[in-house]
Amino acid sequence: MKERTDTQEIIALAFQELTMTKEIDKISITDIMKQADFRRQTFYDHFDDKYDLVTWIFSHELCHSIQSIRDWKNWEEILWQLLTYLESNSNYYRKIFINEKLDSFKEYFIYSIKNIIQHLVEDYFKEQFLSSGKKQIIKTGIDFYSYGLSESLYHWVLENCEPNSKIYHAMLVKLVKYRTKTN
Amino acid sequence: MKERTDTQEIIALAFQELTMTKEIDKISITDIMKQADFRRQTFYDHFDDKYDLVTWIFSHELCHSIQSIRDWKNWEEILWQLLTYLESNSNYYRKIFINEKLDSFKEYFIYSIKNIIQHLVEDYFKEQFLSSGKKQIIKTGIDFYSYGLSESLYHWVLENCEPNSKIYHAMLVKLVKYRTKTN
Repeated sequence: MKERTDTQEIIALAFQELTMTKEIDKISITDIMKQADFRRQTFYDHFDDKYDLVTWIFSHELCHSIQSIRDWKNWEEILWQLLTYLESNSNYYRKIFINEKLDSFKEYFIYSIKNIIQHLVEDYFKEQFLSSGKKQIIKTGIDFYSYGLSESLYHWVLENCEPNSKIYHAMLVKLVKYRTKTN
Repeated sequence: MKERTDTQEIIALAFQELTMTKEIDKISITDIMKQADFRRQTFYDHFDDKYDLVTWIFSHELCHSIQSIRDWKNWEEILWQLLTYLESNSNYYRKIFINEKLDSFKEYFIYSIKNIIQHLVEDYFKEQFLSSGKKQIIKTGIDFYSYGLSESLYHWVLENCEPNSKIYHAMLVKLVKYRTKTN
């Protein structure tokens, strides 16, 4: 299993390196595998296509950093990991986000953010009995926050990660903690 | 000005009627104007193209119902108007949302929701002095809530407005009023 991941990581790195100098649409599987110094066929032992590689990169790199800390008490830290990950790979992700052929990556991105939020919320409520009404509200809330956060991050990356991750993190944390005074 | 709106409304109604029986891509300007019983040229006196008509319908119909009540104290009522408007026109909007050529209507939809939220929030804070830091958080919050709400509504329409507007409204209201217990 380790070797498998190693090969995938080398292929992923080769692809990410190529995106620095070449348009994503012009990067062929042959290019990637030349850069990775593997046989072309090896690509297909691990990935279906470029899209599959792009989703693997996001899931693998994000999982690495947050897998072990996905409890509610760490939500601020998880948000921080997410922001700094996107910020330090912002050139790469900007290219992915604006690429029309990788349009559906946005759905995968939203889906991943939703998974994280769902996990956190389930942890938050884990010791409570939830009526079906409350469960429905929680589901609506998970959707709402997932869309809000993923679209905000998506646009943040497209706008060159401004304000920077530190300021943006503080603002998002305040936002989640903010209490309306009207109820 | 009144006459102008009347003509636009007749054209809009003709188009909406046609969407009940015909695929949007197959509805021509000629079809619309035959249905509306106007000369074809009249369409172009009022609209640039079908996309322009679709955005006009949304903006005109939504404005009608909420223009005069856009104060913070009415936010629950505005959300209600928005939900019931989408619900009672859900067949039409489902067709608009899934039409690839009208893809960018989604951006207009998000933009409109954002406008409403921005207006409400500005009204909410109108008597407060806001530091630039607080202004930035408010801007981030407006974006976050606009994306969260518009994407939620978008998917709600695509999922046949289930749960119905009454239940969904109650859930969204609870969600906005909900206070986390962790801070």
